Amino acid sequence: MTILGIDPGYATVGFGIVQGNRSRHRLVQCGVITTSAGAPFAERLKQVFDDVSLLIRQFEPDAIAVEELFFNKNEKTAIQVAHARGVLLLAGAASGVPLFEYTPLQVKMAVSGYGRAGKQQVQEMVRRLLQLSQIPKPDDAADALAIALCHLRSATNLLGKQDGGTQACSTI
Amino acid sequence: MTILGIDPGYATVGFGIVQGNRSRHRLVQCGVITTSAGAPFAERLKQVFDDVSLLIRQFEPDAIAVEELFFNKNEKTAIQVAHARGVLLLAGAASGVPLFEYTPLQVKMAVSGYGRAGKQQVQEMVRRLLQLSQIPKPDDAADALAIALCHLRSATNLLGKQDGGTQACSTI
Repeated sequence: MTILGIDPGYATVGFGIVQGNRSRHRLVQCGVITTSAGAPFAERLKQVFDDVSLLIRQFEPDAIAVEELFFNKNEKTAIQVAHARGVLLLAGAASGVPLFEYTPLQVKMAVSGYGRAGKQQVQEMVRRLLQLSQIPKPDDAADALAIALCHLRSATNLLGKQDGGTQACSTI
Repeated sequence: MTILGIDPGYATVGFGIVQGNRSRHRLVQCGVITTSAGAPFAERLKQVFDDVSLLIRQFEPDAIAVEELFFNKNEKTAIQVAHARGVLLLAGAASGVPLFEYTPLQVKMAVSGYGRAGKQQVQEMVRRLLQLSQIPKPDDAADALAIALCHLRSATNLLGKQDGGTQACSTI
């Protein structure tokens, strides 16, 4: 089973593709989509949509896992990220691939077994679970891998396949 | 010049299409897109995207005007509307039609000349400016017409065309 994990954003969208089952996982690809700060906001949303749609066509995931928004004190940023997250959910719905949403707490629990785990602890668990020599970079890519792993480790009755090999994270 | 005004939402999206120039305007069509409360959120976003994209193809507006979000105290609702607004901006960007954003204050000022005008006052001005016998219903459709009128009345150097006739508002 192939999972595309997405860490939503409008300036940077993290993505991570993981294959495996509930207990064994391997990295296929990860990276970030970045949009130009100088571009009109709607054009940035279009780039997010186009690039994620391309990833879905390219990697043909069996499921897409998107993190829910964490409400922090910066309301303007939260609202902008929500615009982008709408576009990401649309890309998922338009592809017909089953879409799942997880809270940051669910991701932490599924990956590290500890709901109050820090960002570094979660990223270290991503490294271990995927048997990598180092934590994937950039951070948004590692976060997206955690979300994909959350789905694999949370979902029941998964029929996974295993075929080894890893690729370094990339930026598209 | 034909303007598509959009009042963003995820349960109800108001739309209003107005033809005219800076001083003369006529109603072409207005109504609402509604999505089912029972449908998955991503499917509701897809319906919003598909229906607005259809409106753009059908009416071929020269510009699209979308209202900016008003931050109220219901953060959850604001975040959900922001998801839908992202999808609406994407539909605009994907169509290639020039996209404009106006704050609620700008809409009130352009339509009623008074920044603290109430909803009823703005809707009454929409009725007068479009020479209608009654205020268009539902409210979201009237609000969308106000946004379209805001663009017509704010933009400079508009080359409008006038050809009479009105249609009643509709719901798609």
